[in-house]
Amino acid sequence: MQPVYICGVGMNRFGKYPDRTLRDLAGGPIVDALADAGVQARDIQAAFVANSMAGIVTGQEAIRGQTILPAHGISGLPIVNVENACASGSTALHQAVTAVLAGLYDIVLVLGVEKLFHTDRSVSYRALSSATDLAESAAGGGSSVFLEESNRRLAKYMERSGATIAHVAKIAEKSHRNGARNPLAQYREVYTVDEIMASPVVTAPLTRLMCSPIGDGAAVLVICSQAAARRLGRDQVRIAASVLRSATGQSDASMGIAERSVTAAYEMAGIGPGDLNVVELHDTTAASELMLYERLGLCPAGGAPELVDSGATEIGGRVPVNPSGGLISRGHPVGATGVAQICELTWQLRGAVDGRQVDGARTAMAHNAGGTVLGEPAALSIHILTSERRV
Amino acid sequence: MQPVYICGVGMNRFGKYPDRTLRDLAGGPIVDALADAGVQARDIQAAFVANSMAGIVTGQEAIRGQTILPAHGISGLPIVNVENACASGSTALHQAVTAVLAGLYDIVLVLGVEKLFHTDRSVSYRALSSATDLAESAAGGGSSVFLEESNRRLAKYMERSGATIAHVAKIAEKSHRNGARNPLAQYREVYTVDEIMASPVVTAPLTRLMCSPIGDGAAVLVICSQAAARRLGRDQVRIAASVLRSATGQSDASMGIAERSVTAAYEMAGIGPGDLNVVELHDTTAASELMLYERLGLCPAGGAPELVDSGATEIGGRVPVNPSGGLISRGHPVGATGVAQICELTWQLRGAVDGRQVDGARTAMAHNAGGTVLGEPAALSIHILTSERRV
Repeated sequence: MQPVYICGVGMNRFGKYPDRTLRDLAGGPIVDALADAGVQARDIQAAFVANSMAGIVTGQEAIRGQTILPAHGISGLPIVNVENACASGSTALHQAVTAVLAGLYDIVLVLGVEKLFHTDRSVSYRALSSATDLAESAAGGGSSVFLEESNRRLAKYMERSGATIAHVAKIAEKSHRNGARNPLAQYREVYTVDEIMASPVVTAPLTRLMCSPIGDGAAVLVICSQAAARRLGRDQVRIAASVLRSATGQSDASMGIAERSVTAAYEMAGIGPGDLNVVELHDTTAASELMLYERLGLCPAGGAPELVDSGATEIGGRVPVNPSGGLISRGHPVGATGVAQICELTWQLRGAVDGRQVDGARTAMAHNAGGTVLGEPAALSIHILTSERRV
Repeated sequence: MQPVYICGVGMNRFGKYPDRTLRDLAGGPIVDALADAGVQARDIQAAFVANSMAGIVTGQEAIRGQTILPAHGISGLPIVNVENACASGSTALHQAVTAVLAGLYDIVLVLGVEKLFHTDRSVSYRALSSATDLAESAAGGGSSVFLEESNRRLAKYMERSGATIAHVAKIAEKSHRNGARNPLAQYREVYTVDEIMASPVVTAPLTRLMCSPIGDGAAVLVICSQAAARRLGRDQVRIAASVLRSATGQSDASMGIAERSVTAAYEMAGIGPGDLNVVELHDTTAASELMLYERLGLCPAGGAPELVDSGATEIGGRVPVNPSGGLISRGHPVGATGVAQICELTWQLRGAVDGRQVDGARTAMAHNAGGTVLGEPAALSIHILTSERRV
């Protein structure tokens, strides 16, 4: 892939902000990302805006980006509103990368923003369930459609690998411990494995502290061509692979959408899973993270329990996963999540994170998945980033 | 711009289909476009899906493309769901062109599909009003926000140019006459200027027969690289310019979003308005068409009344506009409209349209506008197509 760079990042602390609008939530991260890149709002040549659920939560459809960006000095340029459920943010990034690769623009903005929290909890659940095929699902609402599907996969995986719910809890413990060191995480409490196991059950065997919460937030990237990166002196973080795939419904255990996507991304970047120094992956629950280790090639088939027990995925381990705290601790405002993952990895590759730095990180991967159709994620995106920092 | 081609097109007859789903509506046009291009579903490498209002009309958010395409044999590939109100279709096309320009794919699909008709008329109006900035507009619903804004501009234009409501009616008469020759148009009746003037008033001075109706429909394009076009023997219609812009709120009469977009498109294609042989433009109302003649450079400032009186925009005239019947006769299922315009122009450039062919058409332009923010269209897209037909 031709060189494309991340030259600026910004995000706010994810949380529950019933009194803030999408426009308001986006403002701080936009200002921060522009300042980080060393550009002005007028330098942005195109914008890709990820939001999945405002149609249901706030009523705003159709032109979300155009209702948000002009208030922050960004207008007139091409604005594309993209959706792909929980993978909306990485889909917007994929579109931004594509536009730079096409040679159309030098400097483009990616905004992921979501208000998912609603004082009427049924509105949040209805929004989440819109990420399934409504015509096919008998669901009628509730985020449990995802959890039930996920739990069926978990039961099979446990049987095959010997993993126990304690492994899931241990992953959750890691995420909460990492999140406690992240000032932008929605939840910053540390919990023991026992406390996680004893927290209220959401859908057995998963407890509340093993699951991603409902929240609001925004994250922003400034993406640029090689020429612009050199001009800005911001050529540290390169996007070495950008892959987007959708469900087939014909996947067997060994070649589902995650395996297909990650294989394509490794090939595009010219690396293998052994080259990764840090990973942010889409842990809708800590059980998803357990199963993804194998699917993303971080361990052999059935090797996730051993990977967890070895401490390899903790900060300081061989391949730290979710140093940000992941979805379950950093939070999961749907459209913002995929962008927030890239913010974290950019900070990690720059080597200047306070309190949760993965030492010597040079190669990073983000995995972002969204929606459910045909029994697997409807959309899945993999980005591989490499550091070009002068050492 | 590097060569990008349209190798297949398909659309259904726009209309009111309360018993058909988005998936069902898309099926026929997908089959037709693939057959037209001479490719199979498995040959499609990426898909860009335009839909703006399903979140409100059917409840399906987030992953619309993934709920539609697999039923028609298209799965596993990158699927991007894009929104830009009434400009969603051309935005999806712009994304497809960008992806081919980036060298990522050879053959990609663009689907525009919308169900706007609802037995509860207030649902349709609420969907349409979602294409404004809900936080800013005091509207609360009703498509009249657009009409009122448009009518303020019309009054000013009439005062400046000497145009009368009879000129608007004459444009509507042309569109209905053209639509009557289009078997895919939602309305196929011919009306006299007097009948159009005498039809029920929607928002004075506009009558129902001067306005685009509510309807459902789907349209599909297969877009390909030069290499693929040669392989398929389908290199007749080239995309010479693809431009997308958003509102600034700082436009004066001479440099609004339409003027900025079309100027960029002419420059990209290396042509001027005098080179155009046929135009499809976004006639939300026949009055929009009147005012757009000037904005798109088809006539000098204030010259639209004379252009109408001269018959230049009729089939057989110097620059026929909306030979399909336009939005007011072909219909306006929001997400499908921008794609349908390209279907019509492709057929025109191939020179094989029955009953409404623009003889010798070699250069064509589509103008597609969507939503309202800051007092002008939120999104506006211009595509210029050229025929490379061997003569």
